[in-house]
Amino acid sequence: MSTLKRSPADFAFLGGTPAFADLLPVGQLYFPSWERYEAAMRGIFERGWFTNHGPLAQTFERRFAELVQVRNAVTVTNATLGLVMGAKALGLTGTVVVPSFTFVATAQAMTWAGLEVSFADVDPHTHQLTPATVEPVLDDDVSAVLAVNLWGGTCGPSALEALCAERGLTLLFDSAHGTGVSVDGRPLGGHGALEVFSFHATKTLSATEGGCVCTDDDELAARLRNIRSSYGAGEPVAVEVTGNGRFSEAQAAIALLSLEDLPANVANNAMLHAAYVDSLAGIDGIRVVAPTGADESAFPYLVAQVDEEAFGMSRDALVSLLAAENVVARRYFRPGVHRLPPYRDAPRNHTLRLPVTEHLARTLVQLPIGALVDLAAVEQICSLVAAAHRFAPRLHVEEAA
Amino acid sequence: MSTLKRSPADFAFLGGTPAFADLLPVGQLYFPSWERYEAAMRGIFERGWFTNHGPLAQTFERRFAELVQVRNAVTVTNATLGLVMGAKALGLTGTVVVPSFTFVATAQAMTWAGLEVSFADVDPHTHQLTPATVEPVLDDDVSAVLAVNLWGGTCGPSALEALCAERGLTLLFDSAHGTGVSVDGRPLGGHGALEVFSFHATKTLSATEGGCVCTDDDELAARLRNIRSSYGAGEPVAVEVTGNGRFSEAQAAIALLSLEDLPANVANNAMLHAAYVDSLAGIDGIRVVAPTGADESAFPYLVAQVDEEAFGMSRDALVSLLAAENVVARRYFRPGVHRLPPYRDAPRNHTLRLPVTEHLARTLVQLPIGALVDLAAVEQICSLVAAAHRFAPRLHVEEAA
Repeated sequence: MSTLKRSPADFAFLGGTPAFADLLPVGQLYFPSWERYEAAMRGIFERGWFTNHGPLAQTFERRFAELVQVRNAVTVTNATLGLVMGAKALGLTGTVVVPSFTFVATAQAMTWAGLEVSFADVDPHTHQLTPATVEPVLDDDVSAVLAVNLWGGTCGPSALEALCAERGLTLLFDSAHGTGVSVDGRPLGGHGALEVFSFHATKTLSATEGGCVCTDDDELAARLRNIRSSYGAGEPVAVEVTGNGRFSEAQAAIALLSLEDLPANVANNAMLHAAYVDSLAGIDGIRVVAPTGADESAFPYLVAQVDEEAFGMSRDALVSLLAAENVVARRYFRPGVHRLPPYRDAPRNHTLRLPVTEHLARTLVQLPIGALVDLAAVEQICSLVAAAHRFAPRLHVEEAA
Repeated sequence: MSTLKRSPADFAFLGGTPAFADLLPVGQLYFPSWERYEAAMRGIFERGWFTNHGPLAQTFERRFAELVQVRNAVTVTNATLGLVMGAKALGLTGTVVVPSFTFVATAQAMTWAGLEVSFADVDPHTHQLTPATVEPVLDDDVSAVLAVNLWGGTCGPSALEALCAERGLTLLFDSAHGTGVSVDGRPLGGHGALEVFSFHATKTLSATEGGCVCTDDDELAARLRNIRSSYGAGEPVAVEVTGNGRFSEAQAAIALLSLEDLPANVANNAMLHAAYVDSLAGIDGIRVVAPTGADESAFPYLVAQVDEEAFGMSRDALVSLLAAENVVARRYFRPGVHRLPPYRDAPRNHTLRLPVTEHLARTLVQLPIGALVDLAAVEQICSLVAAAHRFAPRLHVEEAA
């Protein structure tokens, strides 16, 4: 790592040496040791069973179900397909309420499932969907609410469960960030009709690509298993559509190793998160957003909010400055999904106002955390942020596009 | 392997020793040697780039495009998703004509894409869709034809191209079986608006799971790349939907090795196919179906037709007898897709008659071929079939359900 930035000319965007020689990404990007991976993969070679619900996929489903304390964990190719197939298995029709402040796949999955999407705003402090933000958009077309458990926290599932029970709505959860997160003394996984987890390479539990639909409803799980594979699988229940959402044995092998290492990876994240909180605490205009609505978190993201006036620099300028230092800071979720095609062109969205979503999309930044990051890197990043704040009046950074 | 069946009592279903100690599957199930796989996977570990259009996926796309002589090869998670995303990229609406004599995913992919499906019958000799079988089902709602290149042969793309051009219909191909197949001096891959290949573990080219959409239309390919990933990729073109159809680096690693070994695997299939033709030639009532409409084939399936009267036993009885011998014979495609939900319940299908499809669904059988099969196994299987024919009048086999 380079020396500290003692003057504006030391910043890489002005020609100084980048703080990091290699790109430092946001996200977990954990991978097991080669030796353990080899042992798992050699077994697959010996069995010659590469996909179609093999023994590793079955074992992983059992272990993940135990971890999140649900009756059924149905592995899928990826979380997007899990949401699509989940909506089909539930037989949803009409309109689904989703937050706009989420990864685009949350809404797109509902569109692939043939449903209309209606966007709700989120709470300004937790960034999560709440009964107060959902209620204003409920109308007669709404049949379901797809809530998102964000940032290693939760949206407070029990309050949404009460609202949906009262209004006769189906409730499902995008828990893509939710592995290792507990609320009300219980892991995410068994709330609402179903919850969908992501095992993408950037998640706390990785299968490189992958996902899982969890539910305590055995018949729903049986439908999901049959929808998931054109070959059929599990108990025979009638389904209208079948596709290919299979979880290969190679995905399962990596996921099983990642599951073994989950406690260590979560502990590492917790330590890094605490270090960020400490080191950024003294800098005006930037504040770490803690996971909310959770008893336990896996700290999958380091989310910070930039107050341009107090910090002296916009969030987009900070991202640009950090990029030159080889620190990949991300601006999730920008813009709000209601501003993206096809939703931005829907007539109902012409009068839509989501002020909290708009504000968060302008001010939040994610900084590197996870298996590729250590304490020294966190200190260096925080020192960069401090220097950016200190020299802000003398810096003219071109904002990231 | 056990001795020959010299009397009815020697058959395993009557208590004799099974011809094979282990199950002999239909399908390729090729996998590279551990050493070559290890070299490829160690590179992925070192780069820490596990998915999201990594270097191996990019290399595979270039090499596959060269193999099939098209401008664009867009890898996807699996062929079903490739067909769904292909239909979306083409902006198809209304009704698509598909054969009923196909794997269920052909039709289901169109249903996932929000399209109506209209079933056409196939030619009794080639088992393929032809202008003569498509024309009777064309009406004003039909906007496209999704033809299938079956059994390592083709449906004769040029005649369907002429028909669709004349009628103003979009033509696309399910070439799941099509790797290594040529017609009119050119590989499958560049016909119609697009062709979709499968790299499922049972295919001639395997990525365990995987697929590829091929097209000479650069703008269509750019739309496909953007639809394929919520993160976006490639040239910016407007798309209405995005999802997760990404091809991971692990999939690409296996596919690249499989591509290197394709000539050897095709040569092995050709040899086995010829051995089946020779050995079954003298048996009344069973006939190998040769790939049709192709200059070159990869012989991905051994398809035989059973004439119950001449053979002395129904196709379903033969499948049952072989299963007891640990020979996995498959009955693709049974029933025709028009007989499966949701299609069987569609009002338009109540009067639908597809006599050729019905006949093929009752009489065709697939016998083992591919990397796990050798000449001795083929001879043993053919000897079992010969014995089944010889002793048929004295055998009472319970038909496979």
